[in-house]
Amino acid sequence: MALVVHKYGGTSMGSIDRIKNVARRVAKWHNAGHQVVVVPSAMSGETNRLIGLAKEIMPEPDQRELDMVTSTGEQVSVGLLSMALMQQGKQAVSFTGWQVPVKTDTSHTKARIQSIDEEKIRENLDAGKVVIIAGFQGISEDGNITTLGRGGSDTSAVAVAAALKAAECLIYTDVDGVYTTDPRVVTDARRLKKITFEEMLEMASLGSKVLQTRSVELAGNYHVPTRVLSSMTDPDIPLEEEAKSGTLITFEEDSHMEQTVISGIAFSRDEAKITVVGVPDRPGIASRILGAIASANIEVDMIIQNQSINGKTDFTFTVPRPDYNRAMDLLNNQIKAEIGATDIIGDAKVSKVSAIGIGMRSHVGVASKMFGTLSEEGINILMISTSEIKISVIIDEKYMELAVRALHKAFGLEQM
Amino acid sequence: MALVVHKYGGTSMGSIDRIKNVARRVAKWHNAGHQVVVVPSAMSGETNRLIGLAKEIMPEPDQRELDMVTSTGEQVSVGLLSMALMQQGKQAVSFTGWQVPVKTDTSHTKARIQSIDEEKIRENLDAGKVVIIAGFQGISEDGNITTLGRGGSDTSAVAVAAALKAAECLIYTDVDGVYTTDPRVVTDARRLKKITFEEMLEMASLGSKVLQTRSVELAGNYHVPTRVLSSMTDPDIPLEEEAKSGTLITFEEDSHMEQTVISGIAFSRDEAKITVVGVPDRPGIASRILGAIASANIEVDMIIQNQSINGKTDFTFTVPRPDYNRAMDLLNNQIKAEIGATDIIGDAKVSKVSAIGIGMRSHVGVASKMFGTLSEEGINILMISTSEIKISVIIDEKYMELAVRALHKAFGLEQM
Repeated sequence: MALVVHKYGGTSMGSIDRIKNVARRVAKWHNAGHQVVVVPSAMSGETNRLIGLAKEIMPEPDQRELDMVTSTGEQVSVGLLSMALMQQGKQAVSFTGWQVPVKTDTSHTKARIQSIDEEKIRENLDAGKVVIIAGFQGISEDGNITTLGRGGSDTSAVAVAAALKAAECLIYTDVDGVYTTDPRVVTDARRLKKITFEEMLEMASLGSKVLQTRSVELAGNYHVPTRVLSSMTDPDIPLEEEAKSGTLITFEEDSHMEQTVISGIAFSRDEAKITVVGVPDRPGIASRILGAIASANIEVDMIIQNQSINGKTDFTFTVPRPDYNRAMDLLNNQIKAEIGATDIIGDAKVSKVSAIGIGMRSHVGVASKMFGTLSEEGINILMISTSEIKISVIIDEKYMELAVRALHKAFGLEQM
Repeated sequence: MALVVHKYGGTSMGSIDRIKNVARRVAKWHNAGHQVVVVPSAMSGETNRLIGLAKEIMPEPDQRELDMVTSTGEQVSVGLLSMALMQQGKQAVSFTGWQVPVKTDTSHTKARIQSIDEEKIRENLDAGKVVIIAGFQGISEDGNITTLGRGGSDTSAVAVAAALKAAECLIYTDVDGVYTTDPRVVTDARRLKKITFEEMLEMASLGSKVLQTRSVELAGNYHVPTRVLSSMTDPDIPLEEEAKSGTLITFEEDSHMEQTVISGIAFSRDEAKITVVGVPDRPGIASRILGAIASANIEVDMIIQNQSINGKTDFTFTVPRPDYNRAMDLLNNQIKAEIGATDIIGDAKVSKVSAIGIGMRSHVGVASKMFGTLSEEGINILMISTSEIKISVIIDEKYMELAVRALHKAFGLEQM
């Protein structure tokens, strides 16, 4: 008898039949005596369709008006899901973001949630209703509709769970949990029963796109136990079984019972590496280079600056591959002369592979094992970056799968 | 330099190109110095698509949730139109019903507007913006989204024009005005430059479906000059020409300059006639019969009760043809025995033809001319109903076109 928040993604809401399945699953939880709040996404394809219409009219859509348009996808979902629950004999009520209200800042298309009013939700839960809240959206203090950006429904669900101090936030999705690595690359990748928020954060930001990074951060900040599980199972499987399935993201480090050093191998294929060669080593040069890149809305991930020799240094960083050409143009046509660099060297065929684990903190030798394993496979490491619970390397794209498989095996991830 | 309200229907908003045309037309008015509020409908087909989704889930959709779903159609329209206006170099801002707010009662799917807050609209108009308001929708006092029912965007537009005391409410549609009769039936039907609200009301409710009856009533009650005109003309035609086009519905009876007796011939093909035979002529019988029909949500139009003979009378009324079978079943299986009627006789192949004109008030002989004309064509009149500005007859369906053409000619409607 707990209060739980269910989140269903676009694929889970992708057709009338799937919406009916979601309703059956939710009804099962309600029948067992739980209070259930559901946060659905728009039906799959709908948000893209709406953005497409907007862009046909205005190639760079006005952000406020775009939110006006795209927020309708989730509004349709909540109404339909509410009806589907009524057909399951449940009392249900849907709310848009502004009706709750979910209050956000004024940053249209990438708004941040500031607060969630729980009164209306609790009132309806206490009246025995399933409460359905539109994900991805909120209202700013000036009364405009805002959206949270791509994948924002995850964030909505976790924020609602935090506001209601829910026992658990269940993120139903088209995968059945978080794996030690991508099973498409390593066939004996293993589903993790638990993962800490910090590990999940690294996994999410490194391209294991199960959960939006912001939602994981939020879950960590508010200590919301969050479970990633499959919406593709039979909705009528026993609740006890379903409640234990998937991967639980936990804020208790002690709960990391398995006591492994490394929890997973994450990777990101589409990276590009750029080196600004022969940069005068004086204050402000790095910020000049990165400032120009950031102004062009290009995200920089790893950054390395070599020891300077004779007052000159090389400055290397990675950018998402789709932004590579733009970044190279910017540097060659603008920055190079400005800062007096000798050359700009780029490589758009690199990938990033990372070993992640909270256990790394207390174990020495993870780095040497990682580098040794790659070396044994003849894989050259182009860049290295480390954090408390993560070691990332940039390697030639063609070795990526080989590296992931070798590391997965070296850290014994398949055996447990 | 006036404040005008433009309303565009689903066909006018039916594609990206058409939305761009709407924006060009609105920009033309704004460029000429007018303040413009635009009330668009959902893109054509969208409301039906949304209702279809809802009905797939819940054959008799919950009304509150249906409003949640269907109101998104207009929300998408306002966002897109706002962007299209920005592309025309205009400042524009869109509002949903709840943002204005347009306050309604709580009758979901058929709500009535109670008040419209003009503050936000005026503030934005005064700032030089085109203001775009979602038609068809509002918010109830309990904070739920409501919709006004089919064709509700006409009503929204007129209500906004009334609240703002607009100089004119321009209803842009896929016809270029109100005609003396349907041009598909009478090829030399003529477009009326002006029509009074009372005449328009009779035209609208009698099946000349240019404007929703409610919106005409509202325009009449609040003395909103309302013009029906085409959205299919070149958006760049001179404003002076466009501003005089279409048909102006006016509340000034004196403005009916043309001084004709009859303004138009309206008709409604799909009628059905039912006679309850041998009804005991005692108080309460009529209300018993019509009450049962009304309870089944069947609208009754014309009603005739004959002089009673030997304490018995016949009671005849018309219903929309799609409701005929239901009405007959109800009467035969339930009412007939209850009230002791002798028989129930029905005819589902009748049509209604009406002559309408404010000039009828001061002219005798309209009825005799109408009946004489029909008689000359050998058309038998089955029922007659009259009001101050209208005479309607029920005739055999197969004579409908003939009757309309004969009356159109007899009253000289093509000659003016």
